[in-house]
Amino acid sequence: MDGHPFFRFCRTALENIRAQGRYRQFTPLARQAERYPLYEQPEAAATPATPACPRDREVVVWSSNDYLGMGVDPVVVEAAIQAIHEHGAGAGGTRNIAGTSPVHTALEAELADLHGKEAGLLFVSGYVSNQASLQTILTSMPGWICFSDRLNHASMIAGIKGARGSTTVIYEHNDLADLEAKLAAAPADAPKLIAFESVYSMDGDISDIAATCALARKYGAMTYLDEVHAVGLYGAQGGGVSQRDGVAEQVDIIEGTLAKGFGVHGGYITASSDIVEYLRLSASGFIFTTSLPPAVVAAALASVQQVRKDGWRRERMFERVNTFRDKLRRAGVPFTMTPSHIVPIPVGNAERCRELSDRLLNDYGIYATPINYPTVPRGTERLRLTPGPYHTDQMMDDMVAALTHLLRLNDLTEAPPVAAMA
Amino acid sequence: MDGHPFFRFCRTALENIRAQGRYRQFTPLARQAERYPLYEQPEAAATPATPACPRDREVVVWSSNDYLGMGVDPVVVEAAIQAIHEHGAGAGGTRNIAGTSPVHTALEAELADLHGKEAGLLFVSGYVSNQASLQTILTSMPGWICFSDRLNHASMIAGIKGARGSTTVIYEHNDLADLEAKLAAAPADAPKLIAFESVYSMDGDISDIAATCALARKYGAMTYLDEVHAVGLYGAQGGGVSQRDGVAEQVDIIEGTLAKGFGVHGGYITASSDIVEYLRLSASGFIFTTSLPPAVVAAALASVQQVRKDGWRRERMFERVNTFRDKLRRAGVPFTMTPSHIVPIPVGNAERCRELSDRLLNDYGIYATPINYPTVPRGTERLRLTPGPYHTDQMMDDMVAALTHLLRLNDLTEAPPVAAMA
Ligand SMILES: Cc1ncc(COP(=O)(O)O)c(C=O)c1O
Ligand SMILES: Cc1ncc(COP(=O)(O)O)c(C=O)c1O
Repeated sequence: MDGHPFFRFCRTALENIRAQGRYRQFTPLARQAERYPLYEQPEAAATPATPACPRDREVVVWSSNDYLGMGVDPVVVEAAIQAIHEHGAGAGGTRNIAGTSPVHTALEAELADLHGKEAGLLFVSGYVSNQASLQTILTSMPGWICFSDRLNHASMIAGIKGARGSTTVIYEHNDLADLEAKLAAAPADAPKLIAFESVYSMDGDISDIAATCALARKYGAMTYLDEVHAVGLYGAQGGGVSQRDGVAEQVDIIEGTLAKGFGVHGGYITASSDIVEYLRLSASGFIFTTSLPPAVVAAALASVQQVRKDGWRRERMFERVNTFRDKLRRAGVPFTMTPSHIVPIPVGNAERCRELSDRLLNDYGIYATPINYPTVPRGTERLRLTPGPYHTDQMMDDMVAALTHLLRLNDLTEAPPVAAMA
Repeated sequence: MDGHPFFRFCRTALENIRAQGRYRQFTPLARQAERYPLYEQPEAAATPATPACPRDREVVVWSSNDYLGMGVDPVVVEAAIQAIHEHGAGAGGTRNIAGTSPVHTALEAELADLHGKEAGLLFVSGYVSNQASLQTILTSMPGWICFSDRLNHASMIAGIKGARGSTTVIYEHNDLADLEAKLAAAPADAPKLIAFESVYSMDGDISDIAATCALARKYGAMTYLDEVHAVGLYGAQGGGVSQRDGVAEQVDIIEGTLAKGFGVHGGYITASSDIVEYLRLSASGFIFTTSLPPAVVAAALASVQQVRKDGWRRERMFERVNTFRDKLRRAGVPFTMTPSHIVPIPVGNAERCRELSDRLLNDYGIYATPINYPTVPRGTERLRLTPGPYHTDQMMDDMVAALTHLLRLNDLTEAPPVAAMA
């Protein structure tokens, strides 16, 4: 079997990935629940997939998408532990086959309520919620046209591309003039869907939901909004940008994740009962898979309830983001100003981006993931920083000092400075 | 927006689903970790998606896919709780973005070792592991031909169908003569993949892995084997049917789940390092999603380690399956004899199947999911029973008595008998 062409193909593909400087190692980091955003990087020999670490060390993480630290919140931790004691570690079945616990239906109702919709539906991840929902909708009737923002997430693209027989029209990112021109050019009687995000997580910009929905009304399109990087963070109860802007009811389907602002795991949509019922009974990616463990669902429910009633985490996060930007500005470290909580540091080259991340980790005990192709287009490589409620002023000063030093170096592979906290 | 044709479409589709008797309600059942297979069904009013329950009641579940009860095993429960205390409830990032914990890489190594492969890769579910792996492989080079067993699971079909540009050849279920004829008819130089399962979960039959691999060698095809319903249960260490048959090394890619025999959540593949590395760096469904919570991974790791060294759970499960079949046989209750642990009770009509399940639940406090279309073809509706190590003789006698009574009734909607344990 060594002769199968796929074996040679893989070897060549891996060589090319390495040659292009976009080989990825995943750095094993153990989150310390009681000292977030501190993680422990254990001593380890290098493997193909993971880098070496000379000895156990403590690392300050600047790249987590658990934006509010809800995954380590005592209320959430307690809910998870309680549910494991009561119900065990897994669901044991698909939703239809003994895998629906009362807490699954309670969380679906809670999420529907959060977004002001009639019903909610859980999926094993945000990725699957997008892929399964969009693919199922866009294959439901003949002739669907999906208008998709050019920078939509891979999971939306997977669902849209997977919908054979439907037509995809890509409009320029957040460009409503382009969207309108394309809506106007499409056959008036074709079923239309506009698929877009609120917070685009890599650039940190935010779409105009009200204006997009106005276009949808004008041209008879449905709207599908990914609020993955906004839920928990925006709006009086963390219902996302659509809640902050008071336009949630204009959006037909709001999709979100439980794994970022809510700090746990899983994905969902909320919409009218009919749409949710249709997806519940027809979406392959919903039906044919073991449901989320009750403990994951119980933890997520506790998190959503907490986030809805406590505004301080959101306020504290935005205060920390602003403080960090001030510090960067005063030190002259270049960053991209965004209307969201995301702080991109442009680098523009995959190898340099990876080296910058390596130096931060090895010399300063700071972890910031290099964001390279295929996550962002080539030439726009960056560090993407997410300051949260638990990043202290000291951690910020350390980060600013490290960036100030490293960004001045032409060659990031040169020896570390004496001052570095190796 | 009430005018959008999708709203009317959903309403009509739901009416049709109801008219065809294949509307599904999900019965909320709370697993009782310390009394498995007992679950609690809480008092509840009916909703569109869930049935009414007049008062809290205790239910014996016969449909769980946590075949060995590993999800409630003290070792697994303890590992999950420990990890939540240490690391919190969620991963907080994708594998590349601070979401790889040391326990993720440890579980991948453990699974590779279990199947005798060089490397392993975790996915958020077994569904995603199949869909993402197959789609990525079958779009990697031009000209792929995938030979797919007619009864392959929806998740494999999703990946195979999603691979645009590749060709799919469906061979009759477990029919190796048909497979060979189709392999022989295909262009000799096209890259070929045979995708099949070991235990087919709805019929409970088992494929001939050795003979399939022999055909693969003869015609230069790669092999992809779904061992979802076999891992944990078959083979000296629970490595599946390929381990039991001593042919794991002949299979190129072995896929499994952590959510059935291992009782937790998540999916995986194991294969050569090159294949795993290629998928790790290219599969969209692996890359662009939050990684499994460390606590889920830690629980799964504890489960796999336990299952590998303890054979008694497997032995006890098969003993229980045989005892149950004897009881059914003696009582004259028709069931399909299978070479696996699965006991199908044929019903053959969606409505009767649902009513039978309802009567078992309402009159006898026994839960067995009705298995209807789209999970199985119309006309082959069934109850699918999965006796496990914790089903007692008494539970079996109760089930046999209930089935004996109910299967005699022509009209399952008639009043319950006096003897029923309502
Ligand atoms: C915009 C967007 N949508 C969906 C997802 C997928 O959500 P999840 O991580 O829950 O799979 C992500 C990131 O992972 C994302 O960035
Ligand atoms: C044969 C088969 N493969 C894959 C899956 C998906 O695995 P998971 O439940 O982990 O998504 C299932 C059932 O759910 C299955 O029956």
